[in-house]
Amino acid sequence: MTYSIGVDFGTESGRIVILNLDTGEESDSTVVAYSHGVMDDTLYTSGEKLPPDWALQDPSDYIDVLEQGIPEALRKAHVRPEQVIGLGIDFTSCTVLPVKSDGTPLCKLSEFKLRPHAWVKLWKHHAAQPIADKINGVASNLGAPFLSRYGGKISSEWYFPKLIEMYEEDRELYEATDAFVEATDWVVWYLTGMERRNSCTAGYKAMWSEEGGLPGREFFQQINSEFVYPEEKLGTRFYPLGTRAGYLRPELADSLGLPATVAVAVGNVDAHVSVPGLGVNTPGSLVMVVGTSICHLTLTELEVRLPGITGVVKDGILPGLYGYEAGQAAVGDMLAWYVEQAVPAEYHRFAQELGLSIYEYLEQRAVEIQPGSSGLIALDWWNGNRSILGDADLSGVLFGISLTTTPAEIYRALLESIAFGTKRILENFVEHGIPLQELIATGGIAWKSPLLMQIYADVCGLPVRVYDSQEVPARGAALFGAVAAGSEVGGVATISEASERLRPLLQAEYTPVSTVQQAYRRLYAVYRNLYGLLGEQQAGLLHELKDLRREVWSSTPDNV
Amino acid sequence: MTYSIGVDFGTESGRIVILNLDTGEESDSTVVAYSHGVMDDTLYTSGEKLPPDWALQDPSDYIDVLEQGIPEALRKAHVRPEQVIGLGIDFTSCTVLPVKSDGTPLCKLSEFKLRPHAWVKLWKHHAAQPIADKINGVASNLGAPFLSRYGGKISSEWYFPKLIEMYEEDRELYEATDAFVEATDWVVWYLTGMERRNSCTAGYKAMWSEEGGLPGREFFQQINSEFVYPEEKLGTRFYPLGTRAGYLRPELADSLGLPATVAVAVGNVDAHVSVPGLGVNTPGSLVMVVGTSICHLTLTELEVRLPGITGVVKDGILPGLYGYEAGQAAVGDMLAWYVEQAVPAEYHRFAQELGLSIYEYLEQRAVEIQPGSSGLIALDWWNGNRSILGDADLSGVLFGISLTTTPAEIYRALLESIAFGTKRILENFVEHGIPLQELIATGGIAWKSPLLMQIYADVCGLPVRVYDSQEVPARGAALFGAVAAGSEVGGVATISEASERLRPLLQAEYTPVSTVQQAYRRLYAVYRNLYGLLGEQQAGLLHELKDLRREVWSSTPDNV
Repeated sequence: MTYSIGVDFGTESGRIVILNLDTGEESDSTVVAYSHGVMDDTLYTSGEKLPPDWALQDPSDYIDVLEQGIPEALRKAHVRPEQVIGLGIDFTSCTVLPVKSDGTPLCKLSEFKLRPHAWVKLWKHHAAQPIADKINGVASNLGAPFLSRYGGKISSEWYFPKLIEMYEEDRELYEATDAFVEATDWVVWYLTGMERRNSCTAGYKAMWSEEGGLPGREFFQQINSEFVYPEEKLGTRFYPLGTRAGYLRPELADSLGLPATVAVAVGNVDAHVSVPGLGVNTPGSLVMVVGTSICHLTLTELEVRLPGITGVVKDGILPGLYGYEAGQAAVGDMLAWYVEQAVPAEYHRFAQELGLSIYEYLEQRAVEIQPGSSGLIALDWWNGNRSILGDADLSGVLFGISLTTTPAEIYRALLESIAFGTKRILENFVEHGIPLQELIATGGIAWKSPLLMQIYADVCGLPVRVYDSQEVPARGAALFGAVAAGSEVGGVATISEASERLRPLLQAEYTPVSTVQQAYRRLYAVYRNLYGLLGEQQAGLLHELKDLRREVWSSTPDNV
Repeated sequence: MTYSIGVDFGTESGRIVILNLDTGEESDSTVVAYSHGVMDDTLYTSGEKLPPDWALQDPSDYIDVLEQGIPEALRKAHVRPEQVIGLGIDFTSCTVLPVKSDGTPLCKLSEFKLRPHAWVKLWKHHAAQPIADKINGVASNLGAPFLSRYGGKISSEWYFPKLIEMYEEDRELYEATDAFVEATDWVVWYLTGMERRNSCTAGYKAMWSEEGGLPGREFFQQINSEFVYPEEKLGTRFYPLGTRAGYLRPELADSLGLPATVAVAVGNVDAHVSVPGLGVNTPGSLVMVVGTSICHLTLTELEVRLPGITGVVKDGILPGLYGYEAGQAAVGDMLAWYVEQAVPAEYHRFAQELGLSIYEYLEQRAVEIQPGSSGLIALDWWNGNRSILGDADLSGVLFGISLTTTPAEIYRALLESIAFGTKRILENFVEHGIPLQELIATGGIAWKSPLLMQIYADVCGLPVRVYDSQEVPARGAALFGAVAAGSEVGGVATISEASERLRPLLQAEYTPVSTVQQAYRRLYAVYRNLYGLLGEQQAGLLHELKDLRREVWSSTPDNV
């Protein structure tokens, strides 16, 4: 028996599974929560209040995941260390940090630890929106060829906005940065001692392509005329997914309780690894990775350039196919916000009396509500809109509140808004010639909320399938670890073969219920109108609220 | 020393004060909560689920207010019964009930007690909107002269929509109804044994005027061709405010502990009595009665007909002046909804630890928030929009929600939405030639929320004044009681004289703060746009949500 380890670095925690490469059986997962979590309010080293739209992390938390989690996972799974041949990781993205040439994060140096830009900027750090706007303006004026690969718009979440934000706001720190790396590449660097940047994040988040490389010096000088194109900080070589980055550093192997013969794959992205993790290796399926946000992924044989997507990258998910990414910016995050900020005490008490989690209780209540009966509808833009508007300066809206509106009705409206947002994305793919026959959902909510899955089926009019794996991204990462190890030592030759042979079992299938279709068609028509009204024709209204918020914030730094 | 008693019948309770007619001193109030409260979910006699937008009351609760409250109020105030010369009441309106010719409410007859239409329909019962729409359409087609007195639109809350709703939905009950009366007139009837309908509610809620009477038979046949104009149910004579309806029925006087010589004024309306209650008897002031909803009242010497008001009635507030009413449909109700349905447990815990009510705690947190810093804005349409759109089928909206939105920010956004709604009403008066120099606020929130009062001043750019009376409506009602008694027994000759001589003291004055005006101007510009967009140009979107809600509800009667 041979095994590969997959480590999935999420927004709040890291999750580890060990995959049996002969049977496809996956171990129970080991979860290590990040002790510093997401810093979106204050920086813990200084107590400094962070501006709106910031979101930082501490890279030490990632090392804790490896050092606490891997030995524990081996112990729990009764796997002998010498049976492990590969290790793959996946990460949120674009989650980036500045490091020295030996890989030391700048935030770990005493001279920089109080500086916000020295820390990991998490994917949902949105403060660089003005820079993204500038990049989009310039790219659009110049007719930059990369733009159409990203639906006509790059996001404030991405690599260059986050880098240039540091350049503009903390020049000294920028100068001290030797490399600005995706966290997924940084962890691989830490594991192997080798800086091996992966081509997936480069393609989806740094406008890189095999043919064109990165956007050049001339382009960025139009963004900021003083900006010195920092070739050495960006890296020049990007390795295809499944490439072996190296082997475990011997001293680290010791502390992880693994042999130094374990091959490590280049870094990957949580959403993207999920596609092979679910056994998908052909066009026609929309994979939805439902977590704090949603990533929608699909594959085609021929390239289609279309607006409203996050990106299309050749070989970006599976070799030989075009991989498309779209997304919704707040899903689990929005529901967590709701539970923390707006669910009354009474509901928590009822949940406790029934021995249910608050989510389970809300779901139990929300199931009983007929579609359309609450009069509510939401725009799920709590964290901006990723697809199809690509506008981080939009914000959430709840319509139709009345004096008899209940928490369960609001919760259901939030679930419905998630499904409506996906339907808009689905429509966009179909209208541009990418037909889709099924939705495949994965991620915590896919198992925990049968109601959301049923709403998806009813709203989209397609079957929704859920596969029996508790840790699809970690499973997908483990497959890449097996490919990195290679078939000669009991691994796998290609990721496509691995995904097919080790596909998990179908666990649940949700089919559209005809009796609620009519109500959902009417609700979606209203949603579609509001989406266009507040997200396109009159987007200036929500933008003005965001602008004013930023201005007031910046003129009152002690604002609480 | 002579005294007059004022009884104010609100949405949740009745409140009694005893006014010293020599000193103007008002007693502490006595409050009797309605034991059946507002029935908007189920009818307690049958357990029957009520449709959306229904709101009923039990008239026995009003009698409890008199019988428990008056003796208690006399005891507490150490007033000897023989010192009391007058009694006035005021009520929410249009709050109406069907009764037999002896005044017995139909809901108190065993054969009708299970029938929803037999109960008191509270002012905020909104289910007759389709009938109001029909009335408005017909009136507009016919160019009915009354329409322009009501800003071009009558409300679903009013007398005829509620009556015709009964006609259409429960004909048998309609046939059994001898009189369909305002609750304020019914209580006066109960007190005196005399059916004496007042001209204020007739003018503001039943399209009556001194010159034109009620709309006639021909008009209503266009609404419903079968509808037999029920002259005898409507009453034919309406008495001016301050008229003595009669004296206490001797048997009731006994049980109230009062002499049968106490004069009782004809019924009045809570908002309207507040104008003399606050000592206002000239144009230029906008009186805001801030409770579950807000009524805005002002006076002019010459009549102006303008859109977007609830109504203008000659002598409707004070004799010799035109009285204008406008309003916002949910204020205290909206805040109560928020506290009950959406404030998290943590806030309740903090409030308790600090020994504060949840409202006090929310206010304490909300005071610290800079205008514009939350990115939130609300349309306060939780119960529809009364002025200036007159559209009960609109519903509330909260814009700008993000993952960092806090409950205190939402609470402040709700307070701001109340002030923005008033600013829209103020603008409308001023644009039509009714200049206003000050806001005078009264009602619970005027004392309890200095923050809301300051926001009013800042948003509207006018001083806001609050007078030292805990029970302005009851005080105003007592003034009318004194007028009903007459000056010959120690009462007062005219209400204008009474209001001036017994004016309460100024308690607090809020003046606009210049540093926040700019942020509020920008926020209001966004509000104004959203108001027009969702309330006028694209009102169909919120209407469709309400329509769908009604349809789903009516097709699933066991909907929970």
